[in-house]
Amino acid sequence: MSETFKGKSTSRRGFLRGAAAAGAGALAAGAAKAATPDPLITEPQPWAQGLGEGVDVTPYGLPIQFENDVVRRNVDWLTADTISSINFTPIHALDGTITPQGCAFERHHSGAIELAKEDYRLMINGLVDTPLVFSYADLERFPRENHVYFCECAANTGMEWAGAQLNGAQFTHGMIHNMEYTGVPLRTILEEAGVKTEGKWVYVEGADASSNGRSIPMEKALDDVLVAFKANGEALRKEHGYPVRLVVPGWEGNMWVKWLRRIEVTDAAVQSREETSKYTDTLEDGTSRKWTWEMDAKSVVTSPSPQAPITHGTGPLVISGLAWSGRGAITRVDVSKDGGKTWETARLAKPGEKMALTRFYLDTTWDGTEMLLQSRAMDETGYVQPTKTQLREVRGLNSIYHNNCIQTWWVKPNGEAENVEVS
Amino acid sequence: MSETFKGKSTSRRGFLRGAAAAGAGALAAGAAKAATPDPLITEPQPWAQGLGEGVDVTPYGLPIQFENDVVRRNVDWLTADTISSINFTPIHALDGTITPQGCAFERHHSGAIELAKEDYRLMINGLVDTPLVFSYADLERFPRENHVYFCECAANTGMEWAGAQLNGAQFTHGMIHNMEYTGVPLRTILEEAGVKTEGKWVYVEGADASSNGRSIPMEKALDDVLVAFKANGEALRKEHGYPVRLVVPGWEGNMWVKWLRRIEVTDAAVQSREETSKYTDTLEDGTSRKWTWEMDAKSVVTSPSPQAPITHGTGPLVISGLAWSGRGAITRVDVSKDGGKTWETARLAKPGEKMALTRFYLDTTWDGTEMLLQSRAMDETGYVQPTKTQLREVRGLNSIYHNNCIQTWWVKPNGEAENVEVS
Repeated sequence: MSETFKGKSTSRRGFLRGAAAAGAGALAAGAAKAATPDPLITEPQPWAQGLGEGVDVTPYGLPIQFENDVVRRNVDWLTADTISSINFTPIHALDGTITPQGCAFERHHSGAIELAKEDYRLMINGLVDTPLVFSYADLERFPRENHVYFCECAANTGMEWAGAQLNGAQFTHGMIHNMEYTGVPLRTILEEAGVKTEGKWVYVEGADASSNGRSIPMEKALDDVLVAFKANGEALRKEHGYPVRLVVPGWEGNMWVKWLRRIEVTDAAVQSREETSKYTDTLEDGTSRKWTWEMDAKSVVTSPSPQAPITHGTGPLVISGLAWSGRGAITRVDVSKDGGKTWETARLAKPGEKMALTRFYLDTTWDGTEMLLQSRAMDETGYVQPTKTQLREVRGLNSIYHNNCIQTWWVKPNGEAENVEVS
Repeated sequence: MSETFKGKSTSRRGFLRGAAAAGAGALAAGAAKAATPDPLITEPQPWAQGLGEGVDVTPYGLPIQFENDVVRRNVDWLTADTISSINFTPIHALDGTITPQGCAFERHHSGAIELAKEDYRLMINGLVDTPLVFSYADLERFPRENHVYFCECAANTGMEWAGAQLNGAQFTHGMIHNMEYTGVPLRTILEEAGVKTEGKWVYVEGADASSNGRSIPMEKALDDVLVAFKANGEALRKEHGYPVRLVVPGWEGNMWVKWLRRIEVTDAAVQSREETSKYTDTLEDGTSRKWTWEMDAKSVVTSPSPQAPITHGTGPLVISGLAWSGRGAITRVDVSKDGGKTWETARLAKPGEKMALTRFYLDTTWDGTEMLLQSRAMDETGYVQPTKTQLREVRGLNSIYHNNCIQTWWVKPNGEAENVEVS
C-alpha cells in the first residue's frame, strides 16, 4: 500500500497549483487561492430540489446518457460487411481491469447467433473411449472454476504494422477484454469421455454458420482451458458465444471458440482455414509463422491518449494504462515521456495475475511541454515488450497478427494526443 | 488446484448415471447408455444454416432475450413508492463473484438523479486547514486505487427476522453486490485539506434531495474508504451514484453515500436521521444497538434455491453460494444437507479476499431425498455465522438490520426448494 502514496508529501502543493487551473480551489476567506463564486456551490443545486427517477423502470440498468460515447466501435473500412466484423473496447474511457460485457470487443465471422440453452449440445468425439453429447444442464453438473483472463484478438494493433494508422487507443489496442469466467475445465470433459493414447490434439468448433474451428495441442487442452458459461457472473452475451464458449488463457482470441459445438480428439492438427490461410504471418523470406498461439507481453497508455486528452492544464497528471502477457503475470511496466530515451517505473494497481490485464499508473506532474508517451511491459518470463523497430527487424513488414510493439502517443502542449511513430 | 478435482475419480460413473437422466449420453455404438436420436445432433442445426445478426446495432451489448428474467427485482409491498425503493440482485442466477452493474441491487431514498460530471462538485469543509471544492476533473488528478469490495444493505435479509418470508435468494439475500472500484482514497482528499487535531469524524452527504448523510469515525475514513468514480471499469450507473460515490469497505451500504457532495470534518458524530431513527435496532430490553457499521460474516446457498430448483434429477449436483464478511476474508464455508446436524466443508473458488464476495461450491451427489440446505461462513477473525435461534437469543425479535443468520432451503424430492426455518 505504501507505494501507492509515493510522492504524496509533494502532491499537495502540486495539486493546488493544478486545482486552480481546473477551476476549483480554496473556500476559506483569505486562503491563498480563493475560488471565483461557483453557482453550483452558492446556488441551490437543481438535482437536490426534486425527486429523481425510480429505477424499477429499467430492471437491467444501462449506462447514464452522459456516457453514451463509451461504447464498442467498429471501423467502417475494416471489414466488407458487418456480418463478418470486429469492434473495439473503449479502453480509453475505462479504468481498473474488469471489462463490462456490454462494451467488451467481439469478433464474429458470420454474425452473432441466438442459441437457446435448451437447444444447446456439446459433442465430444474422435479418439475417445466414449463419445458423448452434453446438454447445457449436463455441463452445470461438473465442478466449476472461476478465473479472470484477458481475451485479445491476434489482429489487435495489426493495422499499425505499416505505421501509425488509427488515432485512438480504442482502435489501436481495443480488441481486448478482461472478464471473470465461470466454467468447467476442458480437462474434466475430456476425462469424462476418456482420451485414447493416440489423442494428441483437440479440434474445437463453433455452432455458427462459420463453424470457426481451431486445433489445440492436448497439453494446453489438459492445462487451463475452460468450457465457460458465465462472464463477470452473468450469462455470456449473444455476441460472446451464449450459452457456452471456450476460454483459452493467454492464447489468441480466435481460439476462444464461441457457441462451442464440438470437441474432436485427433492425432494431429486439422490445419483448418483459421490456422493456415488466416492467423499466420508471412515473413520477409516468404516463409510463414504458424501456431503463434500465445499473446506476447504488451501494454498501452490509455490516458492520456488521442480519445482522452489532457484538459486540466499543467500540474498533477495521472498517466494510466493496461499491460498483459499470454505467458504469465506482468511484473513491471515502465513509462517514457520522451519516446523511449528515459523511463520511469509505473505503479501496478495490484500484483500482476497470470493471463489477466494489469492496470498501471504513473502519478506525475506535467509542465505543459510536449510528451512522446510510451509504456513498456515486462512479464514473469523476463520478456520485455519490443519497439516497433525491433519487431520489424525480426518479422518484416507483411505481418498482420501479433503486433505487441511499444505504442507512442504524441501529447501536445494543448493536451491533445496523436498516434505517432518514433524511430 | 488439486482440491478442485477432489472426488474426480468417482465423478465419471456418477456423471453418466446423471447424464442419462438429463437426456444426454454416449454416442458410440454398443455403449452402455445409447442416446435416443437427438434431432439437434442428427439434423442440420438451424442457427448454423444462415447468418446471425451483426452486433454493431447495439454498441452497448445487452443480455440475450433468453436471459431477460435475470434482472433486479423489487418487492411491491416493501416501500410505499418507487421514489424510495430498493431492488434485489438476481444472485440465484449469477455465478462467480463479480456483479455486473446492470443487475446490481440499489437503494434510493428520493430517486436516482442525473448529475453530469461538469456539474459535479465535492466540498471538503469543517475542521480542516483549507476548505476545498473539487470538480470531477480535479479528482481524476489524485493517485487512484482499484479494489473489489462487496456492498450490502444493512436491511438485507431483514424481512426474515419474523420467520421465513420471501421465497428466493434474490429476495432474502439480494441486497448485495460485488464490484471492482476505482477511486481516490478518502485519506488523500482529507490530507489535501488538512485535518485539524479536533477532527475525529467525517460527515458524508449525498447530492440528491434526500441528502443521505452519515457519520464515519476518522480512523475508518483514513483507513480504506474510497471516493470512487468507476465500478467494474466503467462509470457508475446513475442509480449507483454517478459520477462519484463513497466506498466504505465492509460497512453497511447506507454509508456508501451516492452522488457524494460534501465531506465535513467534525469533532463528533452528527447523529443524522440515517444513524438514529434508521439503521439502529431495538433490543428486547428496549435499548437500541447503534453504530452497527460492520457487516457480520454471512453466506447463502444460491443454487439450488427456490428460484433455482434442481431440474436434472439424481446424480451429480453442484451446490453453490456466496459468503462474505465485513471484518476481513472468508476462510471457510461449511454446507449442511440436514438442517445443521452434519456439515461438509465447501470448496472456495479462490482464497477469500478482504471485504469481497467469496464463491463456494460443494460438488456432491444427490440421491433424490429431501434436503434442508444450509451454509455457514467463517472469517479470518474466527467469527462463525450464527443460526437464527442464536441470533434471536442475543438480539430479540424487533430487529430489522444486520440479520446474518444461517439460511435454510428445503429441497424436495422433486427438486423444488422452499424458504423454511429449522429450530
